[in-house]
Amino acid sequence: MTIDRQTLRWNGWGPAKQENPLPDGAPQWAWIKETLGMAVLPSTPAKRLSDIMLPPCHLSAEEIKSFESIVGENQVRTDDYERAFHARGKSYHDLLYIRAGNLDVAPDAVIYPRAASEVQSVLSYCAENNMSVVPFGGGSSVVGGVNATARSATDKVITLDLTLMDGVHDVDRVAMTARIDAGIYGPHLEEKLDAQGLTLGHYPQSFEYSTLGGWIAARGAGQQSNRYGKAEKWVISARLATPTGPWSTEEFPASAAGPNLNQLVAGSEGTLGIICDATVKIHEKPQAKDYRGYLFKDFATGVEVARTINHADIPVAMVRLSDAAETYFFQTFGSSGSGGLKSKLQNAYLKWKGFAKDPCLMLIGLEGEKTTVEWAKERTSAICKKAGALAIGSSAGDRWYHGRFSSPYSRDPMMDRGIGVDTLETATSWSNILKLHEKMISAIQAALDENMGEPGQKGIVMGHVSHSYPDGASLYFTFVFPRNLEDEIGQWQRVKRAASDAIAANGGTISHHHGVGTDHTPWMAEEKGTTGMTVLKTLKAELDPKGIMNPGKLLG
Amino acid sequence: MTIDRQTLRWNGWGPAKQENPLPDGAPQWAWIKETLGMAVLPSTPAKRLSDIMLPPCHLSAEEIKSFESIVGENQVRTDDYERAFHARGKSYHDLLYIRAGNLDVAPDAVIYPRAASEVQSVLSYCAENNMSVVPFGGGSSVVGGVNATARSATDKVITLDLTLMDGVHDVDRVAMTARIDAGIYGPHLEEKLDAQGLTLGHYPQSFEYSTLGGWIAARGAGQQSNRYGKAEKWVISARLATPTGPWSTEEFPASAAGPNLNQLVAGSEGTLGIICDATVKIHEKPQAKDYRGYLFKDFATGVEVARTINHADIPVAMVRLSDAAETYFFQTFGSSGSGGLKSKLQNAYLKWKGFAKDPCLMLIGLEGEKTTVEWAKERTSAICKKAGALAIGSSAGDRWYHGRFSSPYSRDPMMDRGIGVDTLETATSWSNILKLHEKMISAIQAALDENMGEPGQKGIVMGHVSHSYPDGASLYFTFVFPRNLEDEIGQWQRVKRAASDAIAANGGTISHHHGVGTDHTPWMAEEKGTTGMTVLKTLKAELDPKGIMNPGKLLG
Repeated sequence: MTIDRQTLRWNGWGPAKQENPLPDGAPQWAWIKETLGMAVLPSTPAKRLSDIMLPPCHLSAEEIKSFESIVGENQVRTDDYERAFHARGKSYHDLLYIRAGNLDVAPDAVIYPRAASEVQSVLSYCAENNMSVVPFGGGSSVVGGVNATARSATDKVITLDLTLMDGVHDVDRVAMTARIDAGIYGPHLEEKLDAQGLTLGHYPQSFEYSTLGGWIAARGAGQQSNRYGKAEKWVISARLATPTGPWSTEEFPASAAGPNLNQLVAGSEGTLGIICDATVKIHEKPQAKDYRGYLFKDFATGVEVARTINHADIPVAMVRLSDAAETYFFQTFGSSGSGGLKSKLQNAYLKWKGFAKDPCLMLIGLEGEKTTVEWAKERTSAICKKAGALAIGSSAGDRWYHGRFSSPYSRDPMMDRGIGVDTLETATSWSNILKLHEKMISAIQAALDENMGEPGQKGIVMGHVSHSYPDGASLYFTFVFPRNLEDEIGQWQRVKRAASDAIAANGGTISHHHGVGTDHTPWMAEEKGTTGMTVLKTLKAELDPKGIMNPGKLLG
Repeated sequence: MTIDRQTLRWNGWGPAKQENPLPDGAPQWAWIKETLGMAVLPSTPAKRLSDIMLPPCHLSAEEIKSFESIVGENQVRTDDYERAFHARGKSYHDLLYIRAGNLDVAPDAVIYPRAASEVQSVLSYCAENNMSVVPFGGGSSVVGGVNATARSATDKVITLDLTLMDGVHDVDRVAMTARIDAGIYGPHLEEKLDAQGLTLGHYPQSFEYSTLGGWIAARGAGQQSNRYGKAEKWVISARLATPTGPWSTEEFPASAAGPNLNQLVAGSEGTLGIICDATVKIHEKPQAKDYRGYLFKDFATGVEVARTINHADIPVAMVRLSDAAETYFFQTFGSSGSGGLKSKLQNAYLKWKGFAKDPCLMLIGLEGEKTTVEWAKERTSAICKKAGALAIGSSAGDRWYHGRFSSPYSRDPMMDRGIGVDTLETATSWSNILKLHEKMISAIQAALDENMGEPGQKGIVMGHVSHSYPDGASLYFTFVFPRNLEDEIGQWQRVKRAASDAIAANGGTISHHHGVGTDHTPWMAEEKGTTGMTVLKTLKAELDPKGIMNPGKLLG
């Protein structure tokens, strides 16, 4: 069940028709104006598609016919809407271009294959005819991963939209595995598994509008990755189409027969080939779920608790620790609507308990068998309390759970009012996490400060730990700021560069789960090293000798 | 602290001086004769080194000088003992050659570097001078992984013995990581970590005489891999020397910055370069350990319990399930010494309890925090009992634990008396494991039957599950048989081929933790597929363009 692109926002998040979470007059606007130092909120609406001139489709009638002969007539689209929808992903950076009506990178055609064999034939045709190919699932990349950029200025660009390939096959309830088509959206996937009492458990914030293939290609992480694993953990094997032919990776629970080639597929971002389907680990639907909150007196104490829980072998699904700024944001912005009063009471309560200065919220999510969840609840609760945390019960957890996909919906109305919102993420070792957090916050804050368009304006930055491992954890940053309307792209580029440089300089990875895309390529060589880059480029040269696959991504 | 090679058996397992676990007149011999249908046990001693003519060392004095100038005079060895010690690994196949005095593959020299820079210089020199290079740690490979075979008949072969590189560095008690030199032996590594209350937890059967670098290069598994992970799980990053230069892989708890290149190092078996050191995950020494036994009425029930435990998120260190044949072997052979009487009593008890037909022993090992071990004990015990298992307490577990490195020591005395012992292993999904087990047992048994040297003789085969995962588990087989003294190599080759073909035909991987070496190369292409093999060969061609690294291994 693909989603008709016409029912989705081509230039924003979610359905075309949706309730505005921040309508004019919503109390949050006052908070925003005050916090960002904006006397007035400018009106900065997105251009309508009908007012935008797309570059022409460069395909000849014969070329279109050739594609149609492979995938069928209705599966080759060259209309403005399809080309605009598939021009870019959903990053803040992308939105700046799209909303301004800059669709220079729109693909020449969008092709909807319905089978792996069709994908292979399209790739072979493109390789033969020197056309660039961009694989596209939900298109939710926030790093430029699906931008329809060409290998060279003269290349035609074909975007392959995989969302008609959305079956769930070979469900094995003993091995707890299933083979799933790459183009299936999160909700559809979980619906199909749910009907059999099963789950993949991969719920990224983009869950509603992202696909299995994209999760694997970009090494994505669901919010409950502590239990279900990042994509590279739950992928068992994959079948790809590459310009030089099909590639099926080995499928074993564990092997010593040479390197695990599945780990070359995870993170390949469509640069080696297109994932057509994958066999993945699935789970019984958890008997029990428990999400609850704890308040810590500071970030460091919370980090130490996250680490302790991880090292104690306690089966948790999620440990999510907001820093003081993000906790404050939740308390104020999140409650500046109807929850305001409640929040004020809560603040008073916290002050009374001595948590007023830098309280940091931790949400612990548990999923699984009842007895296991019960035991894990006791153990995590004991660890939190020993660290002096204030248990604030399950309501904070439940609130978070029910709104866990909602953040991206607020971005569009904020974009309409001159406000920028971006996020980025990294990961590092437990012994480096406080330092990296501090360096990142200052780097982003300083870059925002240096790039304000008007005096008195300021941006805010906040962070959280949301995925933890034995040796370290992720750090996720959100920054909200008044856009410099004279130089929006430049402003973003400078902030992005400062943040990325700070990651590289302070022992972080350039991405924990968003991927590399185009935006992170300048930092790849430092991270992978000369030999590492050679390894990746050699592989690409072998499987994609003409370099037609997702040009400009991952390797630059 | 390397181990002086002179104190070790060059042609067998363990120290040169050791107690014979099967002296003449030991009651086990009667069991063996009866079981294998051997009227007499022939005397088949190994040739003494002094009676063997090694091929000459082909290095010129100048070449030796060049190596000495890199690593120092005492670090370049060309004497017979060093060359014989490093000629081959420790497989049954290797022993057939070595014990017969066939040392055709002895390296021309053995070099003991003391630093990564020296390894790099030696590799660069060898690349320049077209010499083959074989990396060597403990030399415990049972798949031909360290055999000093040359790239071509005219090549000189240098074995690089890494065991002088044995430091433990950068112990990080917060991130629980350490950087450890590749050449360190298991006991030395654990001793150094133990002094700080830490452990890596990697205890393969070869623990005493294998090294960190070898574990990673061959994707090894310790017996407690459920808790500590296979090598590819606990390796965080590695530093290699390759013929084209050094390669340091990225080091992050999790990343989405392209494919995880550490997973190309794990399983590379010295064919891309030499692992000089690696950063690995370490753990607090477990507060508690609990190893105990359960008897199941048949193998299938035990497999189902192993699966259930795995899917229930219960933190176990080990679940080891012997099939009926192996359980019988433990009961009889293992107890045919002093424990015989006790065993008879036990048998009676089991009969009385209705376990007589096909009882299968499961050992469950738990390690970690006291409360966790206690909880896991309750949970696993409840699952076993629900499946009708007979709990036989901790004595069986403790006995196994204390003898967990002992099996290889019995092989040498058995080899002295015309008996062959070999093992092999695979892994498959839970839904295929009973079928694969059955097919493997019949294939190996049939091949043994068809390859007996004398009428009335017969071999035995037994198996166990010893490493389990969400999607499947390993299967490990041991077979003991009267050697056909007229055609020892041919006999082994035919049995090995039959077993490997059965693995490939029935959905197993050609190795779960022994690796590929030379012995498994014929089955690699089927497992990795055409594109997979191309990927591996392309990588090798890039990093080792002359193909000097560990020729003949992994890729054939």
